[in-house]
Amino acid sequence: MNPVVSRAGPSEATRVVTFDRGVPSVREDRVAGEEPLEIRLRAGGASKTIAITMRTPGHDFELAAGFLFAEGVIGGLDDIREMTYCLDGSVDDDQQYNIVNVDLTRSTLPDLVALERHFTTTSACGICGRATLEALRDRGVPAVGAALPLAPTVITGLPDALRARQRVFASTGGLHAAALFTADGTLRIVREDVGRHNALDKLIGAALLAAPAPLSESIVLVSGRASYELVQKTIAAGVPVLCAVSAPSSLAIAMAREFGVTLIGFLRGERFNVYAHDERILR
Amino acid sequence: MNPVVSRAGPSEATRVVTFDRGVPSVREDRVAGEEPLEIRLRAGGASKTIAITMRTPGHDFELAAGFLFAEGVIGGLDDIREMTYCLDGSVDDDQQYNIVNVDLTRSTLPDLVALERHFTTTSACGICGRATLEALRDRGVPAVGAALPLAPTVITGLPDALRARQRVFASTGGLHAAALFTADGTLRIVREDVGRHNALDKLIGAALLAAPAPLSESIVLVSGRASYELVQKTIAAGVPVLCAVSAPSSLAIAMAREFGVTLIGFLRGERFNVYAHDERILR
Repeated sequence: MNPVVSRAGPSEATRVVTFDRGVPSVREDRVAGEEPLEIRLRAGGASKTIAITMRTPGHDFELAAGFLFAEGVIGGLDDIREMTYCLDGSVDDDQQYNIVNVDLTRSTLPDLVALERHFTTTSACGICGRATLEALRDRGVPAVGAALPLAPTVITGLPDALRARQRVFASTGGLHAAALFTADGTLRIVREDVGRHNALDKLIGAALLAAPAPLSESIVLVSGRASYELVQKTIAAGVPVLCAVSAPSSLAIAMAREFGVTLIGFLRGERFNVYAHDERILR
Repeated sequence: MNPVVSRAGPSEATRVVTFDRGVPSVREDRVAGEEPLEIRLRAGGASKTIAITMRTPGHDFELAAGFLFAEGVIGGLDDIREMTYCLDGSVDDDQQYNIVNVDLTRSTLPDLVALERHFTTTSACGICGRATLEALRDRGVPAVGAALPLAPTVITGLPDALRARQRVFASTGGLHAAALFTADGTLRIVREDVGRHNALDKLIGAALLAAPAPLSESIVLVSGRASYELVQKTIAAGVPVLCAVSAPSSLAIAMAREFGVTLIGFLRGERFNVYAHDERILR
């Protein structure tokens, strides 16, 4: 029998410290789940991984079918014989529901060489988060150790400072922003891009090129959500605090906790949530 | 002399038809620019493309330096001898400012084999838009031809219907949603995901698996911005109308215009903007 849902749920419970006008309270909250999904094509005994994407668990067969259809690999459902999770013993238990095998009705795998570059880049806006965590460990990236105690009022003052400086966004409404602040909340650099990871890369690159104060004494604010990719870049840059106006994902939280980053989300008005390393926020 | 800015600007002017309480008016608006950037590493006479990402033009050397630093390819600026745009004659004029050559101080290219999969997937949340347009043409994907005339009140009613059905978002605030409607504005399917492209893939897959009414009589609504990837998937599915709560990018508009998709953005309250094929909206 094939399961029709992934083992992991679409959301996960997590501990969060909410600061409201400087007053902390601890509660349990739910965050969006984020796990890798590998889509494998099979035909005539051959098998090929066609995409790995970070997705919210659930509706995985729909995701596989929709992806293959949108990319032109299948012309319709008639081209699919069966979709199954990878439940054989060759895969770790906790990854079995992160792999979908798509058996095609045709007898050979389609020629995907021409599309290969296309697939690896459009489909997979993320990679296996575990691989990313391992890559950070393998590279010997240290946990972010800076103490940097921060008053809640410094945190709540950041979004207004960013909004005052967003230029292209003001005219287009269509960009992600990333901003670098000193520990006292002074805005130093803002960068904008259609891609949130690009905005942060530009920001870190600008800080490097300007040879400024050490990034270990800095705060980064992003205009949208906190994905694991943004946390990864924050860790690599040695920045101890990442603030987001919107929600973090489950993997972003896991990564921040392991690598010593204070992760703040839903930073709006006088309130914010701390999902990792709240010890840096002054009571 | 090396230019310090890309040729294309961070935003582009575009014609837009704004409907306000059903009354159309034509004006010029600005949208976020979106073009590919290829980052090439060079050392000891060898050269290698390490990433291609869709980015908003500008601050490209910062983007290259920040990306390489965040990914651990360089440990600091000392590892870079020079960054230049690709201004030799081997590259088309309009692409020269979309390629950054990074000359390393080391005498050989770093061993990136172990990181290769990582790079192709994390860095490049998009690919060259021109390549995507060409891929759609090469695949013989037809322009979306459905007539589907729509009253403005059908359009303005969509976001409320979506909000009423967003489940995981309500508990986490951290998901993108995509919804499929019939031509009279009836909500059929909603799917949510941390990745906006995944949400749309799931939606299209669900429609395929449910073997529903033809997608050519449908409307898709997405909760965030309209990127070119979403337009591409809409075209492949043969859906004639894509609505977004937020802004479209320049490439999303170009693609929608070429392939016959009605592209609507900033759908809020009684207002919305039409960026492509407004002939489907009833006056």
